[in-house]
Amino acid sequence: MTGGRYTLYSMQGSGNCYKPRLAMHHLGIPFSIVDVDIELGESRTPQFLALNANGKIPLLVLPDGRPLAESNAMLLHLGEGTHLIPADPYERALVWQWLFFEQYSHEPQIAVARYWLHLKPGGAAMVTADQIAGWRKKGGAALGVMEGHLEKADWFGGEGFSIADIALYAYTHVADEGGFDLAPFPAIRAWLARVAALPGHVPIGWRPA
Amino acid sequence: MTGGRYTLYSMQGSGNCYKPRLAMHHLGIPFSIVDVDIELGESRTPQFLALNANGKIPLLVLPDGRPLAESNAMLLHLGEGTHLIPADPYERALVWQWLFFEQYSHEPQIAVARYWLHLKPGGAAMVTADQIAGWRKKGGAALGVMEGHLEKADWFGGEGFSIADIALYAYTHVADEGGFDLAPFPAIRAWLARVAALPGHVPIGWRPA
Repeated sequence: MTGGRYTLYSMQGSGNCYKPRLAMHHLGIPFSIVDVDIELGESRTPQFLALNANGKIPLLVLPDGRPLAESNAMLLHLGEGTHLIPADPYERALVWQWLFFEQYSHEPQIAVARYWLHLKPGGAAMVTADQIAGWRKKGGAALGVMEGHLEKADWFGGEGFSIADIALYAYTHVADEGGFDLAPFPAIRAWLARVAALPGHVPIGWRPA
Repeated sequence: MTGGRYTLYSMQGSGNCYKPRLAMHHLGIPFSIVDVDIELGESRTPQFLALNANGKIPLLVLPDGRPLAESNAMLLHLGEGTHLIPADPYERALVWQWLFFEQYSHEPQIAVARYWLHLKPGGAAMVTADQIAGWRKKGGAALGVMEGHLEKADWFGGEGFSIADIALYAYTHVADEGGFDLAPFPAIRAWLARVAALPGHVPIGWRPA
């Protein structure tokens, strides 16, 4: 430790970048932001690739200067030893399960649809009807899995709010921007409202002073 | 605990299913296998969906009867407290980073190409040239990230072999079956040989007696 603080390389509109911002706000961890615009190639410069060879944001630099990639790895690192990760081994395993579900079955459909149809300038004209249909089908299936869980439980990782909820909230709460209608998913809508009502919650556009 | 043992629902040819098999062999954990043939819809039956609503294998049932989905969540659960997960917090964070890299940047290209071009009967005729080109480009980029890391380090998660190596080995060692040539990646080939030479290693086709 050098007495420094966390530095997050991120884009405000990205749900993956929102995850560590939201977690650090919940945990009261001070951090600085470096804005990275992927549309300008700023995640592909030699300087950025030296921090994350995979050329993706978010990228978190720890107070001692060492880099950490992958938003859900950041959630596990930031949350370790806090109330955002359950102490019970099985509940903790379920947190891991939902984190991988989010990155494999949810984000590649729901976040990617939002990127092309909402965030990327001119993106809607660059994708095919087949791609959109694929996102709808697979993303809808992921939402169905979430709905089924939330019909029986208030949170994803166990008895309380955890980093699994943060990971899934990030893109679910803006799923409409990718063309997903949440009207058929009342349990998801109630869970989104629970997350947004928590003390410590901040919206996706929030950034530290 | 009921005095039972772990039960893994899996397909022998799947790299995701190989991961928990290999980890449990390394750790000396006895387990039983239930074969699930996804081509016959066996991961979509009501009985299976009751264990994993996401309808995917592998699915691990713990000795107390509770289910756990997501191969990399299984690795974290099985590895917790063992030599397969580093004790150092930063090395452990890197294990998480590589597990998510594997599921987001590696598996959807390298495993998916292998599934359609090698495993699925008639699969090669069901994909487009554009799909194959996409797998080649993005999968090749993932292999490039791995090669760059392995030029500077022997293992992915820290000083020693870890579950990050197991996760990345699972599909990298059969990448040729998806049409990926590992000749340009000498550091990856040397790492594959290091993994395969470890005591406790078993090949993808292995199953418990």
